[in-house]
Amino acid sequence: MTVRTRPRGRPRGATSKGAETRDRLYRLALEQFARRGFAETTLREIAAAAGVSVGLVYRYFPTKHAIVLALYDDLSRAFAERAARLPRGPWRERFSFLVADSLAVLRPHRTVLHALVPILVSTGEDGLFSPRTAPSRLRVQTIFEEATRTASDVPPGLDGAALGRVLYLVHLAVILWWLLDGSPQQRTTAELVAFIGKVLGLARLALVLPSGRALVRELDELLRRGLLGPARAGGRP
Amino acid sequence: MTVRTRPRGRPRGATSKGAETRDRLYRLALEQFARRGFAETTLREIAAAAGVSVGLVYRYFPTKHAIVLALYDDLSRAFAERAARLPRGPWRERFSFLVADSLAVLRPHRTVLHALVPILVSTGEDGLFSPRTAPSRLRVQTIFEEATRTASDVPPGLDGAALGRVLYLVHLAVILWWLLDGSPQQRTTAELVAFIGKVLGLARLALVLPSGRALVRELDELLRRGLLGPARAGGRP
Repeated sequence: MTVRTRPRGRPRGATSKGAETRDRLYRLALEQFARRGFAETTLREIAAAAGVSVGLVYRYFPTKHAIVLALYDDLSRAFAERAARLPRGPWRERFSFLVADSLAVLRPHRTVLHALVPILVSTGEDGLFSPRTAPSRLRVQTIFEEATRTASDVPPGLDGAALGRVLYLVHLAVILWWLLDGSPQQRTTAELVAFIGKVLGLARLALVLPSGRALVRELDELLRRGLLGPARAGGRP
Repeated sequence: MTVRTRPRGRPRGATSKGAETRDRLYRLALEQFARRGFAETTLREIAAAAGVSVGLVYRYFPTKHAIVLALYDDLSRAFAERAARLPRGPWRERFSFLVADSLAVLRPHRTVLHALVPILVSTGEDGLFSPRTAPSRLRVQTIFEEATRTASDVPPGLDGAALGRVLYLVHLAVILWWLLDGSPQQRTTAELVAFIGKVLGLARLALVLPSGRALVRELDELLRRGLLGPARAGGRP
């Protein structure tokens, strides 16, 4: 993961040193989360592990949550970079490429993501569907929408972006399965992806019918109102 | 929620007073979790809120996790009591009754369950698929298995219990949607259940075919190996 933020108006040397420090603190913090859990780690301990003052950590990451947001940002950017090379083709094939890309980006970080499941799957301020994490989430969601919308075989009468959002939800379910997967090397996740491929093959046939397309529109509508809504409030219910 | 544990070999008066104390601490603890979050609440604070010593809290609940296990136990028993009145009928109808029962049992506890999503959806020791929570989980899973196995219309050549486990997974997805549902009064959850009813109507037609039944067997197999495996290890990966 590379560091992208660079404070303005500082001499180049200092900036680069600052970026180095930030990157080091960031990596150490993720290590601590992975080893001890998110709730159990404090900024004070991250400072101690890095051998720096708490004040210095605060300067780069005012809260633990800022570190999680930085991770979302990095992972979603890494996914977008891979997805930019997505070949033209039918939507099912493009979906399966995107799922493989997503898992490839997330795989090296499974332990820390595992420690973060608690906050990913919640309606708290760092939850996947909260307004604060929206930039990273929308970056990924848009890629699924566009990949489907510009696929070679979207049936006439169906909004490709709507199908893309439904596929984005399926992708999130795969990620959640992967995080909870208790089989050796998460073997059943790959098998689940193959299974979903078969089911989508049947779905493709159903999309020829108006009633099949109506089901996609209905689920997309629920998804937007229930989980992805823009007016979604953060915090506890 | 009623209290079921009663220490043996104590005079009846003391026992009933003990049960009362336990029940009071239990309810206060759930209130604190709901208000402040699970990670943010300590046994010391629960004791303070109840105006008792920490030692007394420890006597009934040696850890915060014991309180969560007690909640799982209560909710799964309350669900089992309702499900015992399940009428005979086709599997789709029985499934929709069970989902309604489950939501009815969970609804009054949405705020505390919300605060517990972090630990429900994790592979930690209180996670939904961990060995420690297995008794409560299996109580519910078995009800879905039996309701489907003894339904009036399980297609020949299909193991009803396998279909029941797949439906149990669908039910968990509905609960997760309900917990994350950002629409007013979680309105989209009811609509999602209706949507799933339609999709299961199509699935019922597909189960007439050997290839449709093969898909159920395949998903059940993945489910058992990936998420529900008996050899599933607790704790972090």
